[in-house]
Formats: sequence, C-alpha cells, structure tokens
Amino acid sequence: MDSTKTNTETTINMPESKSTKGKAMAYTAITNATPHRQGGWKRGVAIFDFILRICALVAALVATTTMGTTDQTLPFFTQFFQFQASYDDLPTFTFFVVANAIASGYLVLSLPFSIIGIVRPHAAGIKLLLLILDTVLVAFTAAAAASAAAIVYLAHNGNSTTNWLAICQQFTDFCQKVSGAVVASFIAAAIFIFLVVLSAVALRRH
Amino acid sequence: MDSTKTNTETTINMPESKSTKGKAMAYTAITNATPHRQGGWKRGVAIFDFILRICALVAALVATTTMGTTDQTLPFFTQFFQFQASYDDLPTFTFFVVANAIASGYLVLSLPFSIIGIVRPHAAGIKLLLLILDTVLVAFTAAAAASAAAIVYLAHNGNSTTNWLAICQQFTDFCQKVSGAVVASFIAAAIFIFLVVLSAVALRRH
Repeated sequence: MDSTKTNTETTINMPESKSTKGKAMAYTAITNATPHRQGGWKRGVAIFDFILRICALVAALVATTTMGTTDQTLPFFTQFFQFQASYDDLPTFTFFVVANAIASGYLVLSLPFSIIGIVRPHAAGIKLLLLILDTVLVAFTAAAAASAAAIVYLAHNGNSTTNWLAICQQFTDFCQKVSGAVVASFIAAAIFIFLVVLSAVALRRH
Repeated sequence: MDSTKTNTETTINMPESKSTKGKAMAYTAITNATPHRQGGWKRGVAIFDFILRICALVAALVATTTMGTTDQTLPFFTQFFQFQASYDDLPTFTFFVVANAIASGYLVLSLPFSIIGIVRPHAAGIKLLLLILDTVLVAFTAAAAASAAAIVYLAHNGNSTTNWLAICQQFTDFCQKVSGAVVASFIAAAIFIFLVVLSAVALRRH
C-alpha cells in the first residue's frame, strides 16, 4: 500500500509546477480513488451511530422517568404510621435516577458531535472522544442497572439468611415500575456497548 | 532514533527550494520515516496494555477469592438454628464471584494477544477484538461490583421503609471481607475502562 501511495503522490507533485488545473485534477483523482469509498462506508456507520444514540436516549429517559415517578402509598395505615414506598427511600434507586439522568444529558450533548461525524466521516478526534466517554457511560449505566436489579431481586424474593422479607406482596405497583426501569437501563447499557464497538470499527481505517 | 529522523528531514528540506522533483522525493522520504517512529510509540502503548492487564488480573482474582472464601459462623446458636453467613446465601454475591472469575479467565486468555500486540504493533485486528471484549467486560465487572455494593450498603445500614435490618453488627468479619472484594472489583472495572481507552488511542492512526 505504501508503494501505491507514493506513486499517486508523485503524480500530484509533478504537474504542480506546470498548471493549477492539473493539480486540481490530480487531487480529484486521489479523492475518488481511496477515501471516497471509505467515506461512504464511514458515513453509514456515523448515521447508524446517530440512530443508536437516539434509541439509547429514549431508553435512558424511560428508565429515569419510570423510576423517578415511582411512589406508592398503601391503602391501609395504622394509628402512627402510613405505609409508603418511594424511589428515594432506597439510596440505590436514587443513584439509579441520577446515573440515568446523567446518561440522558450526555446523550443529548453527544448528538451534535454525532452529526459532525456524519458530515465529516474522517474526523477521528471526535470519534475517539465519543468512544472514551461512551465507555465511561457503559460502566455507569451498567452499574446503575445492576445495583437496582439486586435490590429489586431482594424486594421480590427476600432473603432468609439476613432475614430480609420480600415487600413485593404489598407494594405490587412499586415493584412492577421499578423492574421496568431496570430493564430500560440495561437496554441503554447494551446500546452504549454497541456504540463503543461501532466507534472502534470506524476508528480502524481500512 | 529521533536524531536520524531530523537528519532525513534536513536532507529533504535542502533541495526543496531547488526543484519540485526534489520536493516529491522529500515527501516520500518523510512517509517512509514516520511510521517507524509510530511503531515505537505503539509498542510502548502495547507494553503498558500488558502491564495493566496483569494489574486487572490481580484485582479480579483478589475480588473472586476474597468473596469466594467469605464464610462466617456466629459463636452463638439457638436450639434449632445456627447463624451462619456465606457468599452463596445471597444470589448477588454468587453472581459477583462468577463474574469476577470470568473476568480473571478472560484476562489470562488475553495476555498472549497482548504480547502479540507488543511484537507486532501494527496488528489492528487483534486490538479491535480486545477492545470489543474489554468493553463487554467493563459492563460485566461494573455490574458485579455495583450490585454487590448495593447489598453491602444494605447490610451496613439497613432500610427502614422495607424493614430490612442491618446485619453487619453481627456479621462483622463477613461485611469487612465483602466490602474489600467490592473495592477490588471496582478497581478491575476502572482498569478495564483504561484498557479500552488505550486500545482506542492505539487504533487511531496518525
């Protein structure tokens, strides 16, 4: 590949001294030869990247709002106490809401950069930046989803060793909404992994 | 090595003012010179990658063995029941052990590929493969660490809404060992993120 590259470059530099028209032609010839085919392929990847980002944004927003609006008050109460469960009673669920809100915010901010990637498929710096941030967000959303899943599992099944009783018999609605939010967050994490893979494939030139 | 590069560039720049042919030759000389220096830079990254993999392996192994050997029996018991806590009483901790064991196994298997990266710094296919698998492992170890952390937090603090009591007053040893394992797993996840970033930087050619 090195030898062909050298050849094309030599043919450019030769007419440079003769006329500007020749130079322009030579330049067109090069752009038609190699990078154009690559550009088309890379543009497709960039468009796919943009679509995936919108899907991840929807998933993260669903996870945030579902968990954030989860609040159930039981229809019976004792003299001193009313039974109520909300997401902010459990620190893990608060972390879940914050992490998914951050993921949503990041995804909104990353959309313009993704569009730049479509317009200029060869801008490797932006792809590298997005890849690095996406990787951090993979860890973030996966951690949020997994920790919430661990608590939801406990709420459904309880644990005999630690004497923690299942609460989902009472808080049915609460458990259902929380489970849905966890699934949405796992989907967001999976899309983030896919985004990283896509950026890596696009970064590798060939 | 840098001095030789400077030399070639000097010999290039001299004839540049004389003729365009000389300029073309000079350009060729530069393109031949630069990738060699890049190879050295990439080799450094590959060696760093290898060292990081060993660190991550140690962290994942510590997490697996610490959690896997956690087993505490309390010195008092009732007529029918003996109080004992082991990692496999909680499904989350079992997942933690399995995930960290898989991470350790993957890291051992990835070491030969990392060595190939040192020997042949331009083998992009292997880097891409490792990057993709590393990203999956980021999600995996982060999920294991976060879910175990959520349970450990409950064990330390309990929760009044769900009426889950803290068990760490009784199972002191158990809680300490589990907390240590969680920290080790978080370190492994952080190193995995760093490995992904390193592979991405190495993939981007210049």
